Amino acid sequence: MTKSLKRIGILTGGGDCPGLNAVIRAVAKPAIANGIEVMGIEDGYLGLIEERLRRLRNNDVSGILTTGGTILGSCNKANPSAYSVQENGKWVVHDVRDRVIKSIADFELDTVFVIGGDGTMSGAADLIDRGVNVIGVPKTIDNDLWATDITFGHDTAVTTATEALDKVHTTASSHHRVMVVEVMGRYAGWLALRSGLASGADVILIPEIPFSIEKICDHCITRSKHGKRFTIIAAGEGATLSGGKQFVDHIDESSPDPIRLGGVAKFVADQVSQNTGLESRSMVLGHIQRGGTPTPYDRILATQFGYYAFELLKEGVMNHLVVMKDNKLGSVPIKDVANKVRTVPPDNASMLAARCVGTSFGD
Amino acid sequence: MTKSLKRIGILTGGGDCPGLNAVIRAVAKPAIANGIEVMGIEDGYLGLIEERLRRLRNNDVSGILTTGGTILGSCNKANPSAYSVQENGKWVVHDVRDRVIKSIADFELDTVFVIGGDGTMSGAADLIDRGVNVIGVPKTIDNDLWATDITFGHDTAVTTATEALDKVHTTASSHHRVMVVEVMGRYAGWLALRSGLASGADVILIPEIPFSIEKICDHCITRSKHGKRFTIIAAGEGATLSGGKQFVDHIDESSPDPIRLGGVAKFVADQVSQNTGLESRSMVLGHIQRGGTPTPYDRILATQFGYYAFELLKEGVMNHLVVMKDNKLGSVPIKDVANKVRTVPPDNASMLAARCVGTSFGD
Amino acid sequence: MTKSLKRIGILTGGGDCPGLNAVIRAVAKPAIANGIEVMGIEDGYLGLIEERLRRLRNNDVSGILTTGGTILGSCNKANPSAYSVQENGKWVVHDVRDRVIKSIADFELDTVFVIGGDGTMSGAADLIDRGVNVIGVPKTIDNDLWATDITFGHDTAVTTATEALDKVHTTASSHHRVMVVEVMGRYAGWLALRSGLASGADVILIPEIPFSIEKICDHCITRSKHGKRFTIIAAGEGATLSGGKQFVDHIDESSPDPIRLGGVAKFVADQVSQNTGLESRSMVLGHIQRGGTPTPYDRILATQFGYYAFELLKEGVMNHLVVMKDNKLGSVPIKDVANKVRTVPPDNASMLAARCVGTSFGD
Amino acid sequence: MTKSLKRIGILTGGGDCPGLNAVIRAVAKPAIANGIEVMGIEDGYLGLIEERLRRLRNNDVSGILTTGGTILGSCNKANPSAYSVQENGKWVVHDVRDRVIKSIADFELDTVFVIGGDGTMSGAADLIDRGVNVIGVPKTIDNDLWATDITFGHDTAVTTATEALDKVHTTASSHHRVMVVEVMGRYAGWLALRSGLASGADVILIPEIPFSIEKICDHCITRSKHGKRFTIIAAGEGATLSGGKQFVDHIDESSPDPIRLGGVAKFVADQVSQNTGLESRSMVLGHIQRGGTPTPYDRILATQFGYYAFELLKEGVMNHLVVMKDNKLGSVPIKDVANKVRTVPPDNASMLAARCVGTSFGD
Repeated sequence: MTKSLKRIGILTGGGDCPGLNAVIRAVAKPAIANGIEVMGIEDGYLGLIEERLRRLRNNDVSGILTTGGTILGSCNKANPSAYSVQENGKWVVHDVRDRVIKSIADFELDTVFVIGGDGTMSGAADLIDRGVNVIGVPKTIDNDLWATDITFGHDTAVTTATEALDKVHTTASSHHRVMVVEVMGRYAGWLALRSGLASGADVILIPEIPFSIEKICDHCITRSKHGKRFTIIAAGEGATLSGGKQFVDHIDESSPDPIRLGGVAKFVADQVSQNTGLESRSMVLGHIQRGGTPTPYDRILATQFGYYAFELLKEGVMNHLVVMKDNKLGSVPIKDVANKVRTVPPDNASMLAARCVGTSFGD
Repeated sequence: MTKSLKRIGILTGGGDCPGLNAVIRAVAKPAIANGIEVMGIEDGYLGLIEERLRRLRNNDVSGILTTGGTILGSCNKANPSAYSVQENGKWVVHDVRDRVIKSIADFELDTVFVIGGDGTMSGAADLIDRGVNVIGVPKTIDNDLWATDITFGHDTAVTTATEALDKVHTTASSHHRVMVVEVMGRYAGWLALRSGLASGADVILIPEIPFSIEKICDHCITRSKHGKRFTIIAAGEGATLSGGKQFVDHIDESSPDPIRLGGVAKFVADQVSQNTGLESRSMVLGHIQRGGTPTPYDRILATQFGYYAFELLKEGVMNHLVVMKDNKLGSVPIKDVANKVRTVPPDNASMLAARCVGTSFGD
Repeated sequence: MTKSLKRIGILTGGGDCPGLNAVIRAVAKPAIANGIEVMGIEDGYLGLIEERLRRLRNNDVSGILTTGGTILGSCNKANPSAYSVQENGKWVVHDVRDRVIKSIADFELDTVFVIGGDGTMSGAADLIDRGVNVIGVPKTIDNDLWATDITFGHDTAVTTATEALDKVHTTASSHHRVMVVEVMGRYAGWLALRSGLASGADVILIPEIPFSIEKICDHCITRSKHGKRFTIIAAGEGATLSGGKQFVDHIDESSPDPIRLGGVAKFVADQVSQNTGLESRSMVLGHIQRGGTPTPYDRILATQFGYYAFELLKEGVMNHLVVMKDNKLGSVPIKDVANKVRTVPPDNASMLAARCVGTSFGD
Repeated sequence: MTKSLKRIGILTGGGDCPGLNAVIRAVAKPAIANGIEVMGIEDGYLGLIEERLRRLRNNDVSGILTTGGTILGSCNKANPSAYSVQENGKWVVHDVRDRVIKSIADFELDTVFVIGGDGTMSGAADLIDRGVNVIGVPKTIDNDLWATDITFGHDTAVTTATEALDKVHTTASSHHRVMVVEVMGRYAGWLALRSGLASGADVILIPEIPFSIEKICDHCITRSKHGKRFTIIAAGEGATLSGGKQFVDHIDESSPDPIRLGGVAKFVADQVSQNTGLESRSMVLGHIQRGGTPTPYDRILATQFGYYAFELLKEGVMNHLVVMKDNKLGSVPIKDVANKVRTVPPDNASMLAARCVGTSFGD
């Protein structure tokens, strides 16, 4: 480790994700043990804008491994080059890169550990452009970040969604119903695919495979004819109708003015009900997918990511993002990651396995 | 036990509820051991209308204690005096009491065990009027059935709602948000009250206490001023605005043509957001509250209810409903229960305890 | 409330129990809101002996509702009249009542809230004798405290034991085995009875009903003949062989020199194996039954107990213990409770229900 | 797929493991859909010895994805070349390869799917030697099978152990104790390492790193001095003292005459207690680690393994074992796997990450 290292900062950006605290702990503990001061930056980039940083000591990062959320807080509306504030009742976007850079300089942060998703990493790229040392840790429950096979928080989200699908299963089978459950995943279908496979969903809808209502209805009717009087459909929120129609019922996290429309689950349930006469219901899982205690899998993964991020610091590998590829920890330049989404490829093992046990993708 | 007892029937009616199978098992096992034939009636009263009954043997009721749903199936649209069927695209309601009575006679059922809620019990009252021997077991996750302090399934629903509120808690605290979570309970606030109390919700809205948006907003702002930058609101779906405005976003289970409107959670979140400027989100928990493996508490309670129902049969106490009052099993005439809802009384210990730790009811 | 109330103390004594923090919170929050200073006494009576008390403010009792254990710490070896210390390698017991009384006077505690079980309450009785104002809250995962129908922590322990029995079930059925699981309960069988009933155990052994190895073996063989190739036995640690033989494998929590012998589960498994030739295994659940996040049921009950304890303070009802009888909160004099154990009565509904579904008690 | 394929057999051997049913389902469903008859072999190789096979139809493998155990049963004492039977009170081992081969021929099984661990695979190697077509699927909760990075059931076992360690944590912190929890893993430390890392254990003992009692005691005392008044130790059952002493308290599953001695956890707790004066307790987690509903992760992995096993059948790749290497499904010859254990390598990321956050390995 370079002698000059005196003080680092850590921030968590973007939406909530189980495992954030485990990463913070795994970076802070060895840093403190190595005599480095650790500053916790509050509420993502907002803490740098508003100069809200606090010293993290061993006790502050003790006992947080198993807790959900982030002890540092987060914010969706504050990126260095795009900081949304309300002025006279309107949302105005400011470029605050200078202010952020100044904060980092004033607090004498040698390196900033940035834990976040695509948006947060594009902010990190801005900092890198200005000469700041950044080490990135990927965060997305959707698991759609390019360059890494898996991200912490995803297993917890899959578990939450699977538990919900399991519960819905008993109701569907008791009442002979078609149940459509909408799970998160605007651009990639990992969460719908994995929770659908894990719960034995009969139909899985993901953004990567445009679906046909006719095929879905056929599947429901075929099941009904074979004596299966219920069908469970796991629908990723970004799934589209063949032809391209999209459905938006999500709360747009990044928009200052969130909108809510009828989403894909409601559409599918309504169509199945009308076309088949089968009783159909829809539900939207929503925010619970982001919360809760991380699963052991995610605690381990997050701790490994944090450990490796600190290794990068020790080795002086700057402006890289920690990744897990082919079951090995590694890193890639943060700039390579920007604006790339990792979608489910056609030869994905989970997808093939799902088809193998009879799951329809509506295609 | 009277010598003449040869064959009994069991049916489960109304919405799904964890613990139904535990009741079926606890009635069927001793019956079979006593040489009584047990007929499972499929899909509630529909099984009697369509003459779908099947013999239940020991193996059929073995291993079902821990499973959610009902092995017999259920139905919301078939009561003896109100059976909804679609004819030429329209829903028509028929009186099929004669058909149901004939089925019971044809299958020579000495007694019919009816496990269900308010609607199912009003159907049971119709059977009693025609001379059928009925033994009732109360079922409602809402816990709002008159005459009994507690019903099985409620603890499981409280647990599911509490786990969701716990998960939302981490997101709210990470993002400094007001989160409004809508739980079931159209007429009574037991589920919202108990899950709210168990999760430490800051505001609990229940049908019994009309709420004021001003009071809620004040509470959110007061918390914010005291450095608590999030507020969790547990809202029962039947909660009303002082002045009487109701909110309906529920899926009307009993209606052949379910409607969906903006519900109480969305209303409250929108109002808080507009009036306080605090970021607010709403979510509707929905059907997962009815599903899943019953908690140990509910497995025990359901088994006790089933055991006591069989005791009533042995004692020849007919047309009664099993209840738990003051921690003791007992029974009341089924007819006394009809159309009565057990709401949360003003001196309820949970409500007083909640106020004691600072929870606001918006009043 | 009497004007003079300025400062109260809270202590938690005896073994760990889920819900302790919920009680602390429910006493401290309204006290603080009413302008009363709250002192947390550390490590049970030890904190009074060693004068370790700390001020509890709102933030200290915020967010602890859902956490297991006790933020105040506890101790098994320190009662006012029996304080065990090691001197020259030997354990010596001291009477430290004077020191404890002096601490209470020095810290000017108007009332001491004592949360604990039988041993802790006998310590409280000592304080009452010296004129200290005490309000007691009962605590035992065994649920064997006289005067109250239910205590917090018990539902969580039942849930933990039931989950373990559920897990063992899959192994037993896959391998055609007899599995004996030992759960806590030295003097009363509540935990074994309820977790056994909830998990569908085939045999339940409790201290209240001496068991016969022959009856147990017969039951295993009968099941085997009926094609059930596994048997699950839930054994309370205090269960005795008819004739009176007791089995002790427990860790004696209160003894400074814990002993460990072969317990009831091992004995039963060995005997069944020898007498029937059926493959048998035993396991001891141990400390996990005391730990973990409290169930929603226990969080509610603990909060109600804490709320009611504060009501007693407001009403000036001193030296009473909060109880729940017939589903109603109330209180009894602490001195009435000493040295009385609430065992499972012969007409207990859970026991009758268990017999009804075919469970053997080995009698 | 070759035209000649008419009938396959499936067996599950060795100890219980969550996910077995998911594999059975994922092999049987596509087989049936492709017109192949599927025979379920009961109780591992015992079903071939005793000619107990039953036809599996779609309904038999429906709804089993989420259930623990194996619907086919298993057996620890029956391998083709080593079948233990009791004769005149003594266990005698027979070579029954001829009988097993004859069964396979009589039932006209084109291929036998063998799901099991090391012992079961050595039996499979015997069959291969006699010309039987075998496809293997690896099974071990210990995750110590050579050639594959991960096996299903392991994540569930890690989760069960982590939940237990989490629960013990609250007791330890409330009582200022050293708690030693023994988890499975006779030859490799994966389960102890991962559950220890996930729960934030302070000390982790694994077979790969001989431990020193002095180092462990030092760690406990250092923590105590830093104000941490508890220490959690996760001990793999196969952990050895430096110098080589082993501890055996396990139930030897494969031995007809299981023995039970004091294990590593008891030894460590006793030594820490004697050497440091700190109150110490031990517990053995035992069989619950093998049971229960598989986690979503394991359901997915098991389904992928089953799918890929069927792919091998389609491709005609015989006598191979399905593996997951570097996050990719593949296969290796079954014979290459025999008698090789995959231990934790010194540069393992979980181990390095654990050291990084301050965990001691007692070395």
